[in-house]
Amino acid sequence: MTLDDLQRRLAEFAAARDWERFHTPKNLVMALSGEVGELTALFQWLTPAESASVLDDPATRAAVLDELADVTIYLARLADVLGVDLLEAAEAKVNRNESRFPVDRFD
Amino acid sequence: MTLDDLQRRLAEFAAARDWERFHTPKNLVMALSGEVGELTALFQWLTPAESASVLDDPATRAAVLDELADVTIYLARLADVLGVDLLEAAEAKVNRNESRFPVDRFD
Amino acid sequence: MTLDDLQRRLAEFAAARDWERFHTPKNLVMALSGEVGELTALFQWLTPAESASVLDDPATRAAVLDELADVTIYLARLADVLGVDLLEAAEAKVNRNESRFPVDRFD
Amino acid sequence: MTLDDLQRRLAEFAAARDWERFHTPKNLVMALSGEVGELTALFQWLTPAESASVLDDPATRAAVLDELADVTIYLARLADVLGVDLLEAAEAKVNRNESRFPVDRFD
Repeated sequence: MTLDDLQRRLAEFAAARDWERFHTPKNLVMALSGEVGELTALFQWLTPAESASVLDDPATRAAVLDELADVTIYLARLADVLGVDLLEAAEAKVNRNESRFPVDRFD
Repeated sequence: MTLDDLQRRLAEFAAARDWERFHTPKNLVMALSGEVGELTALFQWLTPAESASVLDDPATRAAVLDELADVTIYLARLADVLGVDLLEAAEAKVNRNESRFPVDRFD
Repeated sequence: MTLDDLQRRLAEFAAARDWERFHTPKNLVMALSGEVGELTALFQWLTPAESASVLDDPATRAAVLDELADVTIYLARLADVLGVDLLEAAEAKVNRNESRFPVDRFD
Repeated sequence: MTLDDLQRRLAEFAAARDWERFHTPKNLVMALSGEVGELTALFQWLTPAESASVLDDPATRAAVLDELADVTIYLARLADVLGVDLLEAAEAKVNRNESRFPVDRFD
């Protein structure tokens, strides 16, 4: 499944339930933020080292995947509603970051 | 550019600057959360209707695209470090949501 | 109960359960952020007008009070661990805001 | 300055600038969330140990105090607009937590 496929599926999902009226960019930013909050809660008491093996425990793994899915879903839906190409925007930002943080400054 | 391409590029970016030691899942969740906070700030005083045309103003458009790019970048990097396929996780979640919220309940 | 009283009580609560080792500023910032995420989720689909009467429904009222309590608790605990006086910091900031946003510009 | 004093001052500040129309609970939750995002960004790359001495550096200290002030301000303002007593809600929650997490389970 590509990001485009996901966005098409989410658009159909919302249309079929008449949820489009709820999916304003403002509301979707809040939904994205709420899901990132739930993801954060799964990591809050872990040390950085523990966080690297967070998927080893099956129950925690399922919870992390569920929150990452929700974050992806609301980010994809928000971008679709706004008409923004996320991967193009990200690529442009990485290009800018290459200039802002030249490699030789970190050698 | 696909999500895979973006993740490969971000991995190279981090490796070239010796930033991998900072990119623990815990730290990346915080970075994701910080960027979502900046995105939220751009929408906080807008009405839902205003938020739908937020890209009409060139300066705000650039700011929103920049924050969406940062959110995408940290989400992609977090998933890569964890070894999670975001689009697969999102597809599985949409499938579960189809069962949780059957269309005929919203007719 | 004053903010000082709350902070004293939270310090005793953490000490009695040997939770002080979890209460680093970094972890507490994440806990605060997670609770704000849960609060955000309660408001995400409401219109601004609906959000003004969010306490009218008893179940939602209990949920909002619970999240506001959690946010207050982690903010108070974080400030205590850092040794920051929140009300003094807030007063100083309001003073700066009085200069940044003079009233006569908004007449 | 007490929390009540801060809330009174913030109410006057908003009234004097005709900002009350922006201060719906929904918008204030977003403003709170945005400020917590900025606070999070200050801690994202720090180890837990580094986060404990974050105030030692004068510039970082000023930034952390500024963000803590903003978080306190929006939380206080949100509670005032909703008519919620934050310290009372927090005290009630700590009482519930005493029952949920009895000390002898942590001996």
